[in-house]
Amino acid sequence: MKFKPFELERWFVILKQLLDLTGNTFDHIDVMLGYGWSNGLPKLRELIAEEYEDLDANHIVVTNGAIEANFIISSTLLEPNSEVVTFFPTYAQLWQVGENLGARVKKLRLLMDNKYKPNIDQLADMINENTDLLILNFPSNPAGAVIERKDLEEICELAEHYNIPILSDEIYRGLEYKATDRAPAAADLYENAISVSGLSKVYGLPGLRIGWLACKNKELLDRIWSFRDFTSICNGVLNEKVAEIALKSRELLRERGRKIAVKNFEILKQWVDDHSDVISWVPPKAAVLTMLMYHFDMDSETFCRGLVEEKSVFTAPGSCFETEKQFRVGFGYDTERLKEGLKRLGEYIASLKER
Amino acid sequence: MKFKPFELERWFVILKQLLDLTGNTFDHIDVMLGYGWSNGLPKLRELIAEEYEDLDANHIVVTNGAIEANFIISSTLLEPNSEVVTFFPTYAQLWQVGENLGARVKKLRLLMDNKYKPNIDQLADMINENTDLLILNFPSNPAGAVIERKDLEEICELAEHYNIPILSDEIYRGLEYKATDRAPAAADLYENAISVSGLSKVYGLPGLRIGWLACKNKELLDRIWSFRDFTSICNGVLNEKVAEIALKSRELLRERGRKIAVKNFEILKQWVDDHSDVISWVPPKAAVLTMLMYHFDMDSETFCRGLVEEKSVFTAPGSCFETEKQFRVGFGYDTERLKEGLKRLGEYIASLKER
Repeated sequence: MKFKPFELERWFVILKQLLDLTGNTFDHIDVMLGYGWSNGLPKLRELIAEEYEDLDANHIVVTNGAIEANFIISSTLLEPNSEVVTFFPTYAQLWQVGENLGARVKKLRLLMDNKYKPNIDQLADMINENTDLLILNFPSNPAGAVIERKDLEEICELAEHYNIPILSDEIYRGLEYKATDRAPAAADLYENAISVSGLSKVYGLPGLRIGWLACKNKELLDRIWSFRDFTSICNGVLNEKVAEIALKSRELLRERGRKIAVKNFEILKQWVDDHSDVISWVPPKAAVLTMLMYHFDMDSETFCRGLVEEKSVFTAPGSCFETEKQFRVGFGYDTERLKEGLKRLGEYIASLKER
Repeated sequence: MKFKPFELERWFVILKQLLDLTGNTFDHIDVMLGYGWSNGLPKLRELIAEEYEDLDANHIVVTNGAIEANFIISSTLLEPNSEVVTFFPTYAQLWQVGENLGARVKKLRLLMDNKYKPNIDQLADMINENTDLLILNFPSNPAGAVIERKDLEEICELAEHYNIPILSDEIYRGLEYKATDRAPAAADLYENAISVSGLSKVYGLPGLRIGWLACKNKELLDRIWSFRDFTSICNGVLNEKVAEIALKSRELLRERGRKIAVKNFEILKQWVDDHSDVISWVPPKAAVLTMLMYHFDMDSETFCRGLVEEKSVFTAPGSCFETEKQFRVGFGYDTERLKEGLKRLGEYIASLKER
């Protein structure tokens, strides 16, 4: 096989590059393709537990991507007329599973004007002994905002007061541009917080479909785990083997992901600076998604539809997040592709001015 | 790497053996571990479509195991107060997903006394324009019974008359001991039948988590597919690559599975013949599960609990299938393990006689 240099610019990892980077070969040719462990390969659960301060392998359940973890949490804890409080906007699947089940979803807005800082007083007014689940997502999709340790601690204390379980989607945790912006995992702060994460974002390995649940409360974790008898039984055994390789070299892979994120953030920041007459934002502090606001009169669906039709550039309209004159951009791409997309976005905005 | 002969007796396939058997090497080291196709790798869908008479790649959606296919069918088509008719007993997940959603589940019994032949007149009485889903599972779990072509055609005609979608779990189709016992796929007979299958049973590859939906009605298929945005997004990309290798040599793998099933069936049959004073059955015609009836006075839970506690042999009590003095045995094991299990089962029954 021809040697290929490790390409930093590539967002998703190639198996060969993972093996080269971590000094491994694919020596799992003898793996039996039988059923895997229903809660995940023990060695993999041990490695995942190292991501947390206070947890061990028994506090981890491996799932088919973080999305399955989110799904089985809501499916286990919610039913018609349950009450969910979610920070909003966020990854829609997080609260839509509950809504589909007939739960009432109350949204606590994170506002661009307030730099997406959670309003703890407002949260205190919204939750009570009838709240069945609180949903957090920091670093946040769609804004790339981080949460301060103090805010997260106060949220956990409030939840603990009413004994409300927390679903904390932390899929972008570890992808902060500065290490000092990293908050603790909710599961380390509160025993009924379930931290959800996986290898798809920070590690650039979505093709492995490896996610997980992490929770100190074993009884709560086991209840959620048992729902998996209906959805997937177990993970792919090859995926678990490759995930083990990845997590044994977690610092290398995290640093790779962080470098691409920072590099792409700088490119996007330059573009926003160059278009500050019509575009404003709260610069993200983590991850590879953010919201941009435009300063002209056009609804966000028309804006985004025109952009994809005329320039083949896909963004999500603010209307998806119940806001206007904004759109979400993803910048977790190969650098050249990102540059090309931003060039086209600039051309599109220039053409709008002329109309 | 040391050469290992292909071991027929082993129920689950080892990756190395799969590659040796099919004349492949693991040349997927360059695969990018990014997101896969949400409906499955196109080449894999083409290969899966070849399992059907009238379907092409567009009629297939690949899922994380057949279990996810079953799950998203019920989750899409059912809601509180929906009405489901299921042949019974069967794999519990098939109807429990609907029951959990609040659907009413009506069970049409397949009886040992009637050699598990479906009673079409009874079905005609049970379904009507209010039926939202009909659930079939042939070759059947737990009995290993097959369905005759004529019966399946009549069932499909009845469903078509009321425009009822069918979930047809065909995970054991292809594992008939005689080819003449193989019924058509329901999806080939009726456009609103969704045939579910995968690589876990016939192909001995559950570790790949590759299942699928097959349906002629593209609009129905797409509705079900879209539910996957909540459960899993896509399949593992390595799994899909290995699945492609397996299906390119499907006859070899099927024949391997069939040979093990027949060999193990013969061992079980000899054991039943040797214990005909206390055990009777309807010999299965496919798959690697069946029900055994015992002729002494003991409830099935006590029987099965004693067996696992005293002999470490796991079986499922008839009570799980709302029947008594019966238990389900699986015989999809390595041959030596099966023989050892049957030896212990014989010892246990002998010891019961002495009490």
